Amino acid sequence: YRKLCSCRLSLTVSLRAALRHLSPRSTFSSAATLQRSPVSPSSRFLPSTSGQPGVGRRKLHTGADGPKPSPDAAPGRMAFSRITQEDLAFFRKILPGRAVTDPDLLESNNVDWLKTVRGSGEVLLRPQTTEEVSQILKYCNSRNLAVNPQGGNTGLVGGSVPVYDEIILSTALMNKIQAFDSISGILTCQAGCVLEDLSHYLEERDHIMPLDLGAKGSCHIGGNVATNAGGLRLLRYGSLHGTVLGLEVVLADGRVLDCLATLRKDNTGYDLKQLFIGSEGTLGVITAVSILCPCKPKSVNVVFLGCETFEQLLKTFQLCRGMLGEILSAYEFLDTECMRLLNTHLKLPNPISDSPFYIVIETSGSDPAHDEEKLHNFLDTAMTSSLVTDGTVATEESKIKALWSMRERITEALTHDGYTYKYDISLPVERIYQLVADMREHLGERAKSVVGYGHVGDGNLHLNITSAAKDPALLVAIEPFVYEWTARSRGSISAEHGLGLKKRNYIYYSKSSQAVALMGDIKTMLDPKGILNPYKTLPDNLK
Amino acid sequence: YRKLCSCRLSLTVSLRAALRHLSPRSTFSSAATLQRSPVSPSSRFLPSTSGQPGVGRRKLHTGADGPKPSPDAAPGRMAFSRITQEDLAFFRKILPGRAVTDPDLLESNNVDWLKTVRGSGEVLLRPQTTEEVSQILKYCNSRNLAVNPQGGNTGLVGGSVPVYDEIILSTALMNKIQAFDSISGILTCQAGCVLEDLSHYLEERDHIMPLDLGAKGSCHIGGNVATNAGGLRLLRYGSLHGTVLGLEVVLADGRVLDCLATLRKDNTGYDLKQLFIGSEGTLGVITAVSILCPCKPKSVNVVFLGCETFEQLLKTFQLCRGMLGEILSAYEFLDTECMRLLNTHLKLPNPISDSPFYIVIETSGSDPAHDEEKLHNFLDTAMTSSLVTDGTVATEESKIKALWSMRERITEALTHDGYTYKYDISLPVERIYQLVADMREHLGERAKSVVGYGHVGDGNLHLNITSAAKDPALLVAIEPFVYEWTARSRGSISAEHGLGLKKRNYIYYSKSSQAVALMGDIKTMLDPKGILNPYKTLPDNLK
Repeated sequence: YRKLCSCRLSLTVSLRAALRHLSPRSTFSSAATLQRSPVSPSSRFLPSTSGQPGVGRRKLHTGADGPKPSPDAAPGRMAFSRITQEDLAFFRKILPGRAVTDPDLLESNNVDWLKTVRGSGEVLLRPQTTEEVSQILKYCNSRNLAVNPQGGNTGLVGGSVPVYDEIILSTALMNKIQAFDSISGILTCQAGCVLEDLSHYLEERDHIMPLDLGAKGSCHIGGNVATNAGGLRLLRYGSLHGTVLGLEVVLADGRVLDCLATLRKDNTGYDLKQLFIGSEGTLGVITAVSILCPCKPKSVNVVFLGCETFEQLLKTFQLCRGMLGEILSAYEFLDTECMRLLNTHLKLPNPISDSPFYIVIETSGSDPAHDEEKLHNFLDTAMTSSLVTDGTVATEESKIKALWSMRERITEALTHDGYTYKYDISLPVERIYQLVADMREHLGERAKSVVGYGHVGDGNLHLNITSAAKDPALLVAIEPFVYEWTARSRGSISAEHGLGLKKRNYIYYSKSSQAVALMGDIKTMLDPKGILNPYKTLPDNLK
Repeated sequence: YRKLCSCRLSLTVSLRAALRHLSPRSTFSSAATLQRSPVSPSSRFLPSTSGQPGVGRRKLHTGADGPKPSPDAAPGRMAFSRITQEDLAFFRKILPGRAVTDPDLLESNNVDWLKTVRGSGEVLLRPQTTEEVSQILKYCNSRNLAVNPQGGNTGLVGGSVPVYDEIILSTALMNKIQAFDSISGILTCQAGCVLEDLSHYLEERDHIMPLDLGAKGSCHIGGNVATNAGGLRLLRYGSLHGTVLGLEVVLADGRVLDCLATLRKDNTGYDLKQLFIGSEGTLGVITAVSILCPCKPKSVNVVFLGCETFEQLLKTFQLCRGMLGEILSAYEFLDTECMRLLNTHLKLPNPISDSPFYIVIETSGSDPAHDEEKLHNFLDTAMTSSLVTDGTVATEESKIKALWSMRERITEALTHDGYTYKYDISLPVERIYQLVADMREHLGERAKSVVGYGHVGDGNLHLNITSAAKDPALLVAIEPFVYEWTARSRGSISAEHGLGLKKRNYIYYSKSSQAVALMGDIKTMLDPKGILNPYKTLPDNLK
């Protein structure tokens, strides 16, 4: 890699002195992407929720003041059919060797990545084609069998695993790339393609995926679309509502909805595909995706900076939007508590001196010299005006990955710190760290760690609170405090994670009752029996 | 303005010789934006369609071979109530002085900008608030009165005027800007704000609107969103599905759906606002919009180039994507026939030497020197490799506007050439000009002019055919030829104009019958009586 000061532009002494080399330490060479850990027998699971009818149906906003069943607990099992031998025979016939019932093989499909929720699915179906998905759903709908569509199972809100005995419909074998047009940059592929595999495929063809996230090594593009994943590049390339150009979706009754256009513009009627982006598998099963992919930038730089206050971090953001302009591709932050967890649990050393806040800035551009000059000018201004106190720059790919891992591996570090209460909050950007500070003060000694990180550029805070073990009293202290705080600031209680099982009953903090009622109408229209991913996304009081 | 050769970088002789000065001729100082012409009494209107039940209901794909009623003719009037004196009294009470019935005042609201369709609306309602819109629709729904929501009435597919006696619900007085957050760039405003007014407001605050189009001087942001307008900046800032962050919509029964979030990310349930983007006023009336606005670029350059073949024009596009990269903000084209119409009807002189094809390239960036260097390098390569034959560059605002007018005023020039048959086609970019060539050959002497222009970067062709007067025989030669050609190339028969009245029955050329049926279900769910913008967007066979 090159430090900025090795570029051909003159640097001020202050900058040269301040920007340190990023040492190629071995700890940095570990995989920067989120790896799924094997499920350990000692993991803390939620107690099995069967036999708890009505749990989670209590009214929201009741101001809970003691340990009661949380609104994120599963409601009672709905009146779906139980799987019979005839059903299994049917599935085995249409999916020879791909209808799995061995409980050991099903274990990892029943448990979420965080190991906080588990289902008791007894059948895992692994279709390879849209036609197979259509046959499965047509059959399940006629038999009133519930279905849990599953991609890479990297979701964080309990949306990707069964709650009871829903049939697990995995897209894992639907991993074919169908077409790529290098002139338009439009990729068409099956829903089960792993995001990182698509990224590698595209990089060889001088393009990139418009989204990138920590779970890229496991997550499926179909799951990304179904959950409207945001990630690290949203600031630059926008949301999937803009970049997804077409979808093929199998509806609950097995009908195949072909909206798999590969056109940048198409105003012929309502844009139906939008309904499925972010619907978390509750309205249909996405089987194929076409997506607009940007050209691979010729030059990428990553900067890791230290900052004394969050206010300075925001001022640095404003400066950087102006000075880096069109080459800015990410502006992320973590606080000193995150750094402590990275140091402690993953042995990742701090690449710069200790600071209350850290910034990760990425630039992507078409001219390395221009980009470095812009970056230099920005850093020079940021340093001389004392907005940032220390920093390091990477331009080589392995060093870029190492710096990114400081941001991407926080989720993993948290899993080692204890039981994690996760919140994914959208707020006006000026407000995002105040919630962390207020929560820290509010919880005091009750929490082990209260950490904040996330996507400053998108106004998206990841607030995480850990405790030694699952702690219902702590949960009561956190909720509804966190949701009420967010609602007061007109924020969203789920910026990018979705609602899944865990957050479904909190929807009213961010959506009007008129809007939620309309969502219910749409669900009824598309899935009248409610077989698709039941107990997820929509609140219990709608059902 | 400055020519490129005045920048501090050295230029090759070939480039310097080729790039001419853009003379500050007075013709360029005329308004570059589309101005609505007053309706002239001699305008060619479609014959009144009342008393033609069943017209337009014939099956598609029948291979018409003689003048028959076209599928774009209006179907018979549906069984809505007629407006009574009691209705008028109600409207006058809730909208004092803003329920207009004078036929002279209603004239311009009944006729579309192209003067190709006219309705016979007898009442124009001009609400100022969402609450008023809600009261109007609640009343109309209970009385079974049809409503035509109207923005700036600049649509090109007959979607913005009544077909029969629908009540015209204009957003013209809903023109308040409600909020602008300069940190996030999020603007919130009422639906009736004129696009150009918003642009001016934002420019004073160092931001721009993410969309720009020829009709900016008249069109309303609510209408832009309702029609999912594309325009000149889509290449850079993406579609409204990505940039619109929130909508307030009044549903057919008067319910107010508040999805007016001002957050960049919000994954709490289904993204309902997406349903209304591009629904052309058939699912609800958009009353307010929040939208993400980019920072105003510090440097804007526009280049006007000549090209020998469309193949070279495409090669130039590929070169320019690579060399201009992140600063490329538009890549538009026009053919020599467009230039002829601009010369003839608007007296706009060609700023460069005559060429079969012309390209308009816009760059927007944060560093003028970097942008000019990128542009210079690109132009140098394009000239030396003979991809382009001549060109001129503008960096000063008035000259930029003058160059843009060569692209933006083609629509206006066409209206002077005769009766215009307009097609707005999405195709794989390699195919877009072949349709123009094939159509020209197919029509031979039957057409007065066959011209092609549009958004190369988005694969969006505007194909226009003129004749001295309305010519049913010519129409039969054009359609379904143009639609069948498009469908064979898996294109869209409406890239950005929408379907409106004129194109509604052609939807099956671009959408599957499953998809269209689902659109019908959504319409029924949201507007069971079908009072909102009837006869538009959805095909007659669904009703």
